[in-house]
Amino acid sequence: MTFATLWSELEPIGRCAQTGGYRRYSWTAADSECRAWFVKQAQARGLEVAVDKNGNLWAWWGKRGPGAVVTGSHLDSVPDGGAFDGPLGIVSALAAVDLLREQGAEPVRPVAVTAFVEEEGARFGVACLGTRLLTGMIEPERARRLADDQKATYAEAMTQAGLDPDGIGADDELIGDIGAFVELHVEQGRALAPLGHAVAIAESIWPHGRWRLDFTGVADHAGTARFADRRDPMLPYASTVLAARRAAAERGALATFGKVIAEPGGANGVPSAVHAWLDARAPEEAVLRDTVATVCSAAERAAAEQGVSFSVRQESATPVVRFDRDLRGRISAVLGSVLDGPVPVLPTGAGHDAGVLAARVPAAMLFVRNPTGISHSPAERADLADCEAGVRALAAVLRELACQ
Amino acid sequence: MTFATLWSELEPIGRCAQTGGYRRYSWTAADSECRAWFVKQAQARGLEVAVDKNGNLWAWWGKRGPGAVVTGSHLDSVPDGGAFDGPLGIVSALAAVDLLREQGAEPVRPVAVTAFVEEEGARFGVACLGTRLLTGMIEPERARRLADDQKATYAEAMTQAGLDPDGIGADDELIGDIGAFVELHVEQGRALAPLGHAVAIAESIWPHGRWRLDFTGVADHAGTARFADRRDPMLPYASTVLAARRAAAERGALATFGKVIAEPGGANGVPSAVHAWLDARAPEEAVLRDTVATVCSAAERAAAEQGVSFSVRQESATPVVRFDRDLRGRISAVLGSVLDGPVPVLPTGAGHDAGVLAARVPAAMLFVRNPTGISHSPAERADLADCEAGVRALAAVLRELACQ
Repeated sequence: MTFATLWSELEPIGRCAQTGGYRRYSWTAADSECRAWFVKQAQARGLEVAVDKNGNLWAWWGKRGPGAVVTGSHLDSVPDGGAFDGPLGIVSALAAVDLLREQGAEPVRPVAVTAFVEEEGARFGVACLGTRLLTGMIEPERARRLADDQKATYAEAMTQAGLDPDGIGADDELIGDIGAFVELHVEQGRALAPLGHAVAIAESIWPHGRWRLDFTGVADHAGTARFADRRDPMLPYASTVLAARRAAAERGALATFGKVIAEPGGANGVPSAVHAWLDARAPEEAVLRDTVATVCSAAERAAAEQGVSFSVRQESATPVVRFDRDLRGRISAVLGSVLDGPVPVLPTGAGHDAGVLAARVPAAMLFVRNPTGISHSPAERADLADCEAGVRALAAVLRELACQ
Repeated sequence: MTFATLWSELEPIGRCAQTGGYRRYSWTAADSECRAWFVKQAQARGLEVAVDKNGNLWAWWGKRGPGAVVTGSHLDSVPDGGAFDGPLGIVSALAAVDLLREQGAEPVRPVAVTAFVEEEGARFGVACLGTRLLTGMIEPERARRLADDQKATYAEAMTQAGLDPDGIGADDELIGDIGAFVELHVEQGRALAPLGHAVAIAESIWPHGRWRLDFTGVADHAGTARFADRRDPMLPYASTVLAARRAAAERGALATFGKVIAEPGGANGVPSAVHAWLDARAPEEAVLRDTVATVCSAAERAAAEQGVSFSVRQESATPVVRFDRDLRGRISAVLGSVLDGPVPVLPTGAGHDAGVLAARVPAAMLFVRNPTGISHSPAERADLADCEAGVRALAAVLRELACQ
């Protein structure tokens, strides 16, 4: 089956008619539909479908066993996410199996296509939850208690989807069977377009984290409180947004404020507090630390100028991931011959299941060109020709790893 | 009855135990309790209580008729508002009646104490709704359809409180009976404290308005989108906050951003849009226009720099109110003798029922010193001695207007 045929079946599921974005949240109806599509496609190919104890889906080509070559991604989306982030890796994996079979390839090691659950953390707040559970990086009890915006727990949501939340947690036997993991993913920036390449190899995932900044002032009347008497937390927040952009740009890092809450939030009042979330990422841990420290100093100064108090709390931290050098070397060599010449090697600022798995097994990633670089948005896209190049690249990698 | 005794009975109603702020929203249980307190106090004084067709409460000393001298304020609060904004005017009015009676004063014109509904607009979004309806400044049908955050309409809320929403609207007969209106109110800035005065007279209410600013960019991934490729609306919003403060400060105006919404609001994404509300006020209409124009130019420039689109819409506009010059003159003369020397005359940036009524009847305001200037906040306060000075001042004004 061609990539385009496979793709067109998955494309309408969970798409919002108003925004054109996807709302495929874990353990919802849209997610079930995506999972059913995966099972149907695997079965149509004679692949044996297994659901691991964390709900991740596995489609085995050949009997599960040690040294398995595993490829896949995730089906869930961020709110109003794009079509490609996640699904591209799964559709490409199935299409690569088809291509290898057309080519008469015969794996000497088991091959598996996977769909990991709750990669985005859009519903329950913890990214890569399926692989974090699988690798034992999060306590099962903590995961069970995670709650969505409607206060439904992860355990309740899993139960409702027909799975047993009591069984979740590390699965060392399954991890032990993985010889290599390769995740194909749409590029989420715009590094490839100017280079003229359809596919790249990931070098590393930048260290990154999330910080909550609290600016606490004093609520007051917007019509009567003189500027000199105000303690307005919106002003230091605004200064901090601009300082963060400057500090990050000067260091080749990234800093973003995507979430801000003003309290009490009346349009005719000086706010009592502004809570803001800083997402920061950098090529190196030291650069990340320096960027965040610079932002926090600027926030503190700006807050003090307005008589506003400032505090900061790190909410999450993900250290740098460097993908397996040997595996990268093998992939680079095989892609060089398939795709006519050397393939770019790129770092990325985004977290991925491959980044989580990299702590336990040799892992690698392929990126497929994104012409605009936009991701986590309905405007996210990849050209069909590039997706097809991605399938050829992934098939070549699987052949290299599993068929000899 | 002393001011302090009266005050202590009203003080606990509708106060939030967590914040210490008040949540006295119109037509809620807390509001009913405040209204019941008003009726009880009026009846205890032998004042005849009337509920006008808009739900405003009137306590008549003497038979209602032409040339009435009316004083009062409101009982409702902003979210987590202070104890004084509104109630101080009502408690002081009742205490002033008591003081005049102790002094043996005998009005030759009817006197009324009023409690106007929904002055803050905290529940239904339109400030001074009770006096706007009374004076015919808002269409009854529009008022009936106003909805609170839970989608309950004003008509439903009034009905639930036992009143008939079909009867609301202008009451020219009642307005025609008002010879003068005087509202005593806690100061909402800090102009009096440095002047060493307990009471001031209002000169005018600044023209003011609310503008909705929309910055529309493109949602993107916080970990992968390069700065050069982003269209991040948070940056021009931040620049605009700082520009607004500068523009207002340079012109002796006020500008505040108390409400901001980032969409879709994920902490790990570049927002697709930032919606922000600018509250701006100035001594003169021309200054207000110039301030807002300067803010909007800055917003437009900052938006263009980031490839973000910008639009602005005025949501409300209140022209300047100049209180009746003759009435101010009489009040100034009488207070000069009661309070030892000339009383300051101040403009204010806040809207009030007196400002609405000023369009139809001679109206005036007295301000009682606020030592910190903080208002619309649990920290709002006035010293007891100043409140008592306010009562003496208001009593002297009522004697001047009603007893000779």
